[in-house]
Amino acid sequence: MKVGFIGLGNMGSPMAMNLLKAGNELIVFDVVEANVAFVIDQSKQKAISCKNVYELANMDLDVIVTMLPASQHVRSVYLGENGILENVDSNTVLIDSSTIDPQTARELHTLANAKGIALLDAPVSGGTAGAQAGSLTFMVGGDDNTFQKMKPFFEQMGKKIFYCGRAGNGQVAKVSNNLLLGISMIATAEAMTLGVELGMDPVVLANIINASSGRCWSSDTYNPYPGVLESTPASRGYTDGFGTDLMLKDLGLACEAAKSVKQPIMLGGLAQQIYQAFSRQGNGHLDFSSVINFFKNH
Amino acid sequence: MKVGFIGLGNMGSPMAMNLLKAGNELIVFDVVEANVAFVIDQSKQKAISCKNVYELANMDLDVIVTMLPASQHVRSVYLGENGILENVDSNTVLIDSSTIDPQTARELHTLANAKGIALLDAPVSGGTAGAQAGSLTFMVGGDDNTFQKMKPFFEQMGKKIFYCGRAGNGQVAKVSNNLLLGISMIATAEAMTLGVELGMDPVVLANIINASSGRCWSSDTYNPYPGVLESTPASRGYTDGFGTDLMLKDLGLACEAAKSVKQPIMLGGLAQQIYQAFSRQGNGHLDFSSVINFFKNH
Repeated sequence: MKVGFIGLGNMGSPMAMNLLKAGNELIVFDVVEANVAFVIDQSKQKAISCKNVYELANMDLDVIVTMLPASQHVRSVYLGENGILENVDSNTVLIDSSTIDPQTARELHTLANAKGIALLDAPVSGGTAGAQAGSLTFMVGGDDNTFQKMKPFFEQMGKKIFYCGRAGNGQVAKVSNNLLLGISMIATAEAMTLGVELGMDPVVLANIINASSGRCWSSDTYNPYPGVLESTPASRGYTDGFGTDLMLKDLGLACEAAKSVKQPIMLGGLAQQIYQAFSRQGNGHLDFSSVINFFKNH
Repeated sequence: MKVGFIGLGNMGSPMAMNLLKAGNELIVFDVVEANVAFVIDQSKQKAISCKNVYELANMDLDVIVTMLPASQHVRSVYLGENGILENVDSNTVLIDSSTIDPQTARELHTLANAKGIALLDAPVSGGTAGAQAGSLTFMVGGDDNTFQKMKPFFEQMGKKIFYCGRAGNGQVAKVSNNLLLGISMIATAEAMTLGVELGMDPVVLANIINASSGRCWSSDTYNPYPGVLESTPASRGYTDGFGTDLMLKDLGLACEAAKSVKQPIMLGGLAQQIYQAFSRQGNGHLDFSSVINFFKNH
């Protein structure tokens, strides 16, 4: 297939490379020229670059994938006179893998549908490691037939591909999961620090929790207490991993989405404030499990 | 072995019966006469009753197990002129399976040790169903040799027997796990209600969360959303299960224990307040997963 890819950051660049390796033709664009140069170089000149979104949208593509930082970038790439929706052929399938609010995702779907263009919202989880390994999880919302048609395409970049239902539901699934994740991580941090402060060995405590009803991904796979699990950010000074500021972004989306339907998320609201305080203390770049340092005896 | 059992409520009564079935001699006491009569009847008169704690403590027993509602009952049974510590033979091993604060548990250990009496704190999880089936989890604190000696005894009432370390650590493990559980359940309730309110099917959402980083016992084993999992309290009107008021008691212990070491538990504090508000609204008797109704659109 002839694939356009817009947004070649830490996630987009390895995703695009996996599409090239799978045998697709690749046309790329990013506002940061160095990002474009990096992918062209990595591809040994097989990928082709474009001057702008307008040029890319006019290249008679089978698919366009966008992987952008936030809603405002998605709006600017899709909407307006030089954007994708005004210029793309109606046979091109649009896939937005950015993590944005469900409301904006649904607005894009409505505008695309009005022009007879198929669009899927398909945010991912799995981080840069998953993007490189081609083992991302995709949460996909939109028309079921389009999803079925594109499933093999997603499998070129990911391992678990979930159909979430109607337009915007990919974003809803992601925001709901990450709300639960963001709270669980702080809850694990509170339980681990309380137990250790009261005299327990952290490894013994984690083993008991992981065999009991407190068990969660944040305790059994990504435990924030240093030395409990090997190969977690906690055991290498919270480098790499999923940044505190990225979790803060996702909890911000959860709070906005909750507000849009007047849904109370009380622990979510407090969790958002805790990550915000912790980021403000200078830890935004560290893996989000480092939030345990907000609670730990220093 | 010749076993004394004090506290024959919903948990104590089936635990005592399992000890009898395992071939032990059983001497029982409870302040509620009907509880004593029930166990004597169940045992087909094999169990023997006592008039009071003083009489039971003087019966030359190998083990005494106590299973009492709260710290004040434990204090009144163990301490004072007619209590266990003043009257028991120093060869008797004492096991307190009540869920109480670690501070009181440690005070009991100190007083018992001063008299050369071996004591283990051994709170359980698994609820009344686990007590009946003999599949409880025991979290045990105290002397390692005493633990090793008593492990087969615990296995007559439970399946997973964890040694948690020094005196009081059984209570620390339980309070830490239940802190995490209490928060995770509300977090799952917030994530599920947010996702559904934004347009997702609850079963699809739960499946995605359970294969992702939001996964936890509260989502994959005890999901609070009705119809997601069969045989959970959520799918039978939140009857039976683990009562909201019991979770409220455990979060109260967590808050007290945290205060004793100045450990901040911010989500834990808010979770305690949410269960408290929900109990005040008349739901204390319902399974704690019913807290989802605090958030759900009615």
